Amino acid sequence: MKYAIGIDIGGTITKIGLVSEDGKCINKTSFRTKELNKFSDYVIKLNKSIDKISLKNIDISGIGIGAPNASKNGTIETPANLNWKGKLNLVEKLKEYINSPIFLSNDANCAAVGEMMYGNAKSLNDFIVITLGTGLGSGIVSNGMLVEGHDGFAAELGHYSLKNMGRYTGLDVQGGLEAYVSATGIKRTIMYMLSKYMNDSIFRDISFNNLHGEDITKAAEKNDFIAIKAYEYTGKILGEALSNFVSFSQPEAIILTGGLVHSGKWILEPTKKSFENNLLPFYRGKVKILTSGLEDKDSAILGSAALVWKNI
Amino acid sequence: MKYAIGIDIGGTITKIGLVSEDGKCINKTSFRTKELNKFSDYVIKLNKSIDKISLKNIDISGIGIGAPNASKNGTIETPANLNWKGKLNLVEKLKEYINSPIFLSNDANCAAVGEMMYGNAKSLNDFIVITLGTGLGSGIVSNGMLVEGHDGFAAELGHYSLKNMGRYTGLDVQGGLEAYVSATGIKRTIMYMLSKYMNDSIFRDISFNNLHGEDITKAAEKNDFIAIKAYEYTGKILGEALSNFVSFSQPEAIILTGGLVHSGKWILEPTKKSFENNLLPFYRGKVKILTSGLEDKDSAILGSAALVWKNI
Repeated sequence: MKYAIGIDIGGTITKIGLVSEDGKCINKTSFRTKELNKFSDYVIKLNKSIDKISLKNIDISGIGIGAPNASKNGTIETPANLNWKGKLNLVEKLKEYINSPIFLSNDANCAAVGEMMYGNAKSLNDFIVITLGTGLGSGIVSNGMLVEGHDGFAAELGHYSLKNMGRYTGLDVQGGLEAYVSATGIKRTIMYMLSKYMNDSIFRDISFNNLHGEDITKAAEKNDFIAIKAYEYTGKILGEALSNFVSFSQPEAIILTGGLVHSGKWILEPTKKSFENNLLPFYRGKVKILTSGLEDKDSAILGSAALVWKNI
Repeated sequence: MKYAIGIDIGGTITKIGLVSEDGKCINKTSFRTKELNKFSDYVIKLNKSIDKISLKNIDISGIGIGAPNASKNGTIETPANLNWKGKLNLVEKLKEYINSPIFLSNDANCAAVGEMMYGNAKSLNDFIVITLGTGLGSGIVSNGMLVEGHDGFAAELGHYSLKNMGRYTGLDVQGGLEAYVSATGIKRTIMYMLSKYMNDSIFRDISFNNLHGEDITKAAEKNDFIAIKAYEYTGKILGEALSNFVSFSQPEAIILTGGLVHSGKWILEPTKKSFENNLLPFYRGKVKILTSGLEDKDSAILGSAALVWKNI
């Protein structure tokens, strides 16, 4: 059996795992990303964490890293959610400590590779993964290969622009998809629905900062008008956007993953309905909307480790 | 030197050429596609035309065909602009007469492969070709390979939907890009500008059916207000759409080709301006807008022939 290290660099938590080629995470650790003020200290901590989870008698085939704003050249560029600014030479710095091959890609690209190796895209050559977390990330696979683009910044579909929509994203882009479709997006939509309707709702007593995704699902299950409207609105926009993505790469499946998908039918039903309504005739019945096959299984670590098997 | 046959099946004309591997069309013929009422007769005519242009002592490596609505499986499916309906088994039928390998792809995909072999995409692994003819076609290359999708219907960006726009396409899709950006689209925009403004214009004396692309360029050069407004409007929409396409596949270049591009600066300047204005910060300065390197050089025949070199 071969083994790889999978690392997921998130704005809050950095996760490190030792993963076998058949997709089992057999040892893992994590630390708070923002603990380290200097990037060079972060790299040292990362190296120590890799040592900590490595096991005697187990050789590592390589290290796979998923991170926001990762380029094709081993760098992380001006990440909005990390402490450090500018162009961070992550792979180069880590190579000062480590001899194994190191691969870096966008975190949503890692999610796509993870689905291809271990999840619901095992037999697929053409698919798209949409991660619905704090923002909206995406990984696109065409001809069995990641669509990374000229220098690694392809598949930024959270910034895909809905020209008729007015919300601003974190990058100050007006009408960016993730301003509507993400954990943050649906919270904004709850606010919008509170502005639009006069109906009673549990959300009239909850502030924006105290509002969590699970609350919206619970409220919808109790038939809360505002919660149901928010899911319908979010699903309608997501379905329209996904139908446009199909005219780009004609995937066999679109796999949805991340916190917002935990609401199940509340988000999936309006999304599928809107998707089918907007799909062109010659695509109908050919594109499946699926959820991740990796939920609650160290998916981010598995996806990063899968980058190693895809590249060596 | 190796040789291939390149065939371009258009709604009006079918072109057949004998092409050398270095990109010279050394013999060619054509006939009117709608001459043949029965599809089986069309295939016979196609085979005779291939015989007609073939030369003694020259072996053919293969036959490449570009056609609208071509699938990955050698069929043309419910083509809007051809006489015959349903699923047409073009490759299978042609194989009854011909022994060489036969490759079929969407006509805009052939344009992309042609640019890669002989045009302005020679050194590029990630680019998009947009063909601005009667409709809007597109060919996408990622990782040096055509993005064809699950069964060949990827890259249908003419049907990419502008949700805030109201025009109907030939497929009755509201807001489809080609309803705005194509030879037909800009004619519709001339009508729209005549409805919107009261200014004098040469177009107040020309009917829709008598209006041709060259007239719009000539009028713009004479400072016709309606013509200039029409180019500005078309370029603005095209630039916005192209900037969205970048967040999908991050091409190194987008190559524009087809009749509408013959107007030169009139369409290119507003397109580039709108493109740069809408591009996300991390893409700026990284994506070139180019015109075809194959104009007036039997480009459709060359593109179809290039399909052979890409596949054998």
